[in-house]
Amino acid sequence: MPPRIVEVREGILKKNDQRARQLREDFRQHSVFVVSLVSSPGAGKTALLEGTLRELKSRCRVGALVGDLATERDAERLGRAGVPVRQITTGTVCHLEAQMVADALQGWDLASLDVLFIENVGNLVCPASYDLGEDLRVVLLSVTEGEDKPLKYPTIFNSADLAVITKIDLADAVGFRREEAHHNIHEVRPGLGILETSARSGEGMAAWTSRLRELSSLAGSPRR
Amino acid sequence: MPPRIVEVREGILKKNDQRARQLREDFRQHSVFVVSLVSSPGAGKTALLEGTLRELKSRCRVGALVGDLATERDAERLGRAGVPVRQITTGTVCHLEAQMVADALQGWDLASLDVLFIENVGNLVCPASYDLGEDLRVVLLSVTEGEDKPLKYPTIFNSADLAVITKIDLADAVGFRREEAHHNIHEVRPGLGILETSARSGEGMAAWTSRLRELSSLAGSPRR
Repeated sequence: MPPRIVEVREGILKKNDQRARQLREDFRQHSVFVVSLVSSPGAGKTALLEGTLRELKSRCRVGALVGDLATERDAERLGRAGVPVRQITTGTVCHLEAQMVADALQGWDLASLDVLFIENVGNLVCPASYDLGEDLRVVLLSVTEGEDKPLKYPTIFNSADLAVITKIDLADAVGFRREEAHHNIHEVRPGLGILETSARSGEGMAAWTSRLRELSSLAGSPRR
Repeated sequence: MPPRIVEVREGILKKNDQRARQLREDFRQHSVFVVSLVSSPGAGKTALLEGTLRELKSRCRVGALVGDLATERDAERLGRAGVPVRQITTGTVCHLEAQMVADALQGWDLASLDVLFIENVGNLVCPASYDLGEDLRVVLLSVTEGEDKPLKYPTIFNSADLAVITKIDLADAVGFRREEAHHNIHEVRPGLGILETSARSGEGMAAWTSRLRELSSLAGSPRR
């Protein structure tokens, strides 16, 4: 890559980091715990989020931002959970950036939220480089994608704070090798917490939401 | 996006298009039919390719280039099909570019091939913008990803010449709505050919390889 491109790219990333730092400060001041979800397209981010919002809304004030290249389908789908949701459509941009999150939050009173979810564009590569000011970045891996994905897309697993293996109800149907998947995640990121869920059968959802409640209750404490 | 970035990005794309044009000319001169595969991570590109290489190798001379951020796993896996395979590892780059293909082909006698497959990095966004000199771009969509993906990632479906719905053996297990998927593909790209396959059960593989043989037999004719 010629030097000029690298320079421009570093400029974009630096600017994004600064914007993300401001966002993180805003979130902290308003005691909002922010969770971002990253994965391949179709790994089940929206389904997991739908179940999570329904489960959490009786216990705390939740909301979500959802990113896609096109359509407002996810916002409409999540809106049916009865919580505030806003869609970010990125056009041809393959990831969310901190400024897009800031723009989407315009006029949204952060003080009205305890937990904000940010669902990224489905992409296992590019979102890794963009800090969105989140407290917790969760990478999803569905059992149908294959156990080798952490080895083949190491950067995003490296940038995550928690891994969630989704569609666990399909594990037998696809011959999912659980130990190999865990092993590969830990080869890339030793010690990363792993949960297994199925939004469809409900398996593992209680453990996931309970982990979120536990982490969000620490939201007043100093964070990264 | 500030003007300077757009300008640099357009420069990259223009350079890629020129390189791709040269590649296409090389392929044509050597009568190599080139098929690229694009999809989400885990949609089954490598599995489809593995079955395809085994099926085609008795009928014509085939080879493959496989792109990943990291690891040589796919090349090793495909190499077991007994055909020449080379791995391209892109590091942090989320897509293949024409120059990477040209570099990977260094020293490979194109005259020794009838059909060359290029498996892109798993990404449903960025590869859409990069011409690799291929004759046929095939976009894969697995039944586990959901029927709405064409609407949410329109650019890549728009840039494809053929769509292959993969893991069709799992259709019932995941409640795949076939007509909705076809409808959504055609909403984005009217008339796009659609095949349905399962590399695991073998369903649809004969129709797929027969379509490839049919198209490659036209490889001497003028192409796009």
